[in-house]
Amino acid sequence: MLSSSDTVGRLTRAVGAGLVIDDPDILPSYARDEAQWAPHGTPLAVVRPRTTDEVRAVVRVCGELGVPVVARGAGTGLSGGANAVDGCVVVSLAGMASILRIDPDDKIAVVQPGVVNDDLRAAAAKLGLWYPPDPASAPWSTIGGNVATNAGGICCVKYGVTRDYVLGVEVVLADGQAVRLGRRTAKGVAGYDLCGLFVGSEGTLGIITEVTVRLRSARPAEQTIVGYFDSLAAAGRAVSLIGASDVVPSALELMDRHSLRAVDDWKHLGLTDGANVLLLGRTDAPGEAGDAEAERILDCFRRAGATDSGRSSDEAEADALFAARRLVYPALERLGPVLTEDVCVPRSRVPEMLERIEAAALAHDTTIANVAHAGDGNLHPAILTRAGDEGSRLRAQRVFDIILDDAIALGGTVTGEHGVGLLKMRGLRDEVGPAVLDLHRSVKAALDPHGIFNPGKVISLEPAARP
Amino acid sequence: MLSSSDTVGRLTRAVGAGLVIDDPDILPSYARDEAQWAPHGTPLAVVRPRTTDEVRAVVRVCGELGVPVVARGAGTGLSGGANAVDGCVVVSLAGMASILRIDPDDKIAVVQPGVVNDDLRAAAAKLGLWYPPDPASAPWSTIGGNVATNAGGICCVKYGVTRDYVLGVEVVLADGQAVRLGRRTAKGVAGYDLCGLFVGSEGTLGIITEVTVRLRSARPAEQTIVGYFDSLAAAGRAVSLIGASDVVPSALELMDRHSLRAVDDWKHLGLTDGANVLLLGRTDAPGEAGDAEAERILDCFRRAGATDSGRSSDEAEADALFAARRLVYPALERLGPVLTEDVCVPRSRVPEMLERIEAAALAHDTTIANVAHAGDGNLHPAILTRAGDEGSRLRAQRVFDIILDDAIALGGTVTGEHGVGLLKMRGLRDEVGPAVLDLHRSVKAALDPHGIFNPGKVISLEPAARP
Repeated sequence: MLSSSDTVGRLTRAVGAGLVIDDPDILPSYARDEAQWAPHGTPLAVVRPRTTDEVRAVVRVCGELGVPVVARGAGTGLSGGANAVDGCVVVSLAGMASILRIDPDDKIAVVQPGVVNDDLRAAAAKLGLWYPPDPASAPWSTIGGNVATNAGGICCVKYGVTRDYVLGVEVVLADGQAVRLGRRTAKGVAGYDLCGLFVGSEGTLGIITEVTVRLRSARPAEQTIVGYFDSLAAAGRAVSLIGASDVVPSALELMDRHSLRAVDDWKHLGLTDGANVLLLGRTDAPGEAGDAEAERILDCFRRAGATDSGRSSDEAEADALFAARRLVYPALERLGPVLTEDVCVPRSRVPEMLERIEAAALAHDTTIANVAHAGDGNLHPAILTRAGDEGSRLRAQRVFDIILDDAIALGGTVTGEHGVGLLKMRGLRDEVGPAVLDLHRSVKAALDPHGIFNPGKVISLEPAARP
Repeated sequence: MLSSSDTVGRLTRAVGAGLVIDDPDILPSYARDEAQWAPHGTPLAVVRPRTTDEVRAVVRVCGELGVPVVARGAGTGLSGGANAVDGCVVVSLAGMASILRIDPDDKIAVVQPGVVNDDLRAAAAKLGLWYPPDPASAPWSTIGGNVATNAGGICCVKYGVTRDYVLGVEVVLADGQAVRLGRRTAKGVAGYDLCGLFVGSEGTLGIITEVTVRLRSARPAEQTIVGYFDSLAAAGRAVSLIGASDVVPSALELMDRHSLRAVDDWKHLGLTDGANVLLLGRTDAPGEAGDAEAERILDCFRRAGATDSGRSSDEAEADALFAARRLVYPALERLGPVLTEDVCVPRSRVPEMLERIEAAALAHDTTIANVAHAGDGNLHPAILTRAGDEGSRLRAQRVFDIILDDAIALGGTVTGEHGVGLLKMRGLRDEVGPAVLDLHRSVKAALDPHGIFNPGKVISLEPAARP
């Protein structure tokens, strides 16, 4: 049995001392992501590679020594997928942050995994191009992390998720080889979709060291349609009506009264003056087509019983409303620890899911603030607790589980865009069942036979940890 | 060792005599798909199940006896993926042809694998909905076959391929279990994308017994933009210009003089009067946005040196041009055996790829008719031969290989939408390299440990057969 210092010595010889951290004062800052109450251990070392070859060297050392490898981007994950396990080596990809190429002719970009989402978007925008996936963490989260969790965001309702933009990846496999999966072309069916298999695999199959993404042309300016509703049920009806209509909005976001109030208490925007639930719709169709779509969204708002609604003629006002949407989490976190859900249900079941969430909150004396990528049916009930109040934590965790069960019962999924990590392992098992979980394990064993990559996450053989 | 009749006896006891065919006069009609000169064997039996349970029963029998299982839809494949191997059981899914559900609220359809593509499209259209993937085989090919090969088509340039519409599948695995993979929701990241792994796996991992697809709302009528060019090079430049522009056409098809002439000789449409190469562009943007897109496509045609171009004001004429596009293959097949290519290159490399194809044809005294989903960079050079002329067949097969090598050299893929089957096995190996081919084999072995599903296809361990 090797000691930690032997492992650090091997890593240092492999990649150089400057890239290896084993300072016990620094290691804790790499121990967890932003998931609330997800268990985590302490890494024996953190390595910050700059090249694929350095990643390969680290994986070879860890493979030989049987040391777990946990890959990490910016650590903004919300399911514990990047949490350290005791005695692991954390590989931080944050230093591999070069945009290697943007090709305007073929509309693709090739980036290292540590590139921050907003940095890629900004570089593309300079060339009149657009990288659509826009998770709320876009100012901080990395493309590698986005790919590992198949991140979503606000524009997914019309433009799809990270998976829809990843054409190819370079990955370091368990044996230390680097391979390229996927393609550079618009279409391709040469072999299995192994690139797609790595998207959303949360670091359990290998380490992503390069990503090739599709870009789109920059799009026309969006118009915003605002609807105020008395109840979640009425707002949910509006979401279902839009889903069944022939309009695909470029955004359809929901904020309930708890969310609005939390932002108001902090920023004093007057959002709660007369509003109980707010729906923000957008269209980016050009010209008169955009006007027609805006009117149809407005019509859905009205038919669902909006107490007030209208097209925002003021771009600054519309941007402020979306900025408020992005402030909901930090605003809620000011009030105490927040357990964030990420269920997704068929659009037609959004009203019923919102009702069930309200019922669960009531039954378990818990406050839930609802924010949602409502147009996708992707709901983020945020379960609020009081710091240090063990009872409120336990009730929150009970409600968290009830919401997962309700989502499954309505034909939905336990995670729309945050990933399974640690918090949704029980939910995954109940959603897919034992046979499909076994299939996951077969694939995992085929690609990572000694189980060095992110052990204990997603599909661990052990009974899943409750949050 | 069991004899064939023992196997037939077991199958008959498992699913009933009426579903099992072992008549030697009928078996040959299930022995191959439409790939030219792809090797095929003779099945020992064909089973035509009507239910998932019957598929499970067949797979269990074959698994126990170690008999290969080759799944088959309508047999319209062009790579030999559905070709029988000697002594196999062919499972024809053509009889499982029910549209189980179309849900207009959530815009999804649930279908059995034998549903013909055009039948799904027609049923969706009645509800104001649209299933976009439109392979040329849509009047005959089945959704199950489309999923197994990740089929493309004309509208992919804007709307993506079959993979982009498959939300979930039910599959029968090697152990005879039926499992559901994927989801019904707009988003979801619960576990690995095993549904996506089955899409395009060409019957090598299991048998697809049900498919859940996304639908879109019916779209506005398309406008057609026609461009005539002196040379493939000029038409290729137009394709690259459109690819680099901010317009995504809803179709961008290319037909060269050989293709046009073959259709003219048959149907006397006058296509070759003054036309050498024809590009057909379409836009389905609504109203003035559509007019603006049409003008920008037209501008690209002109800048690339079109000898004539214009917006078609006559819908019947435009439809006739697209009908002619669909007639190219049957028209060419009137002239002799056709070896069809399916390479895909980055859009910016389309001009160079077209040049290389012309050069290969010239160097090897072969006639190649080019048709292409040009907007995707997906080229279908059709290598023409004379029936019974062994020399022309050998030259065609040599050129086929050269084109694969050229596509790889230009950063492309050996198959854009037809699949690997038998004809592209060498190409796949050279495109992805030995490490990635090994990764395929690991995944295959994990899901089909005894190799009963479609053995010898796609990633066979044996050196790949040349076409």
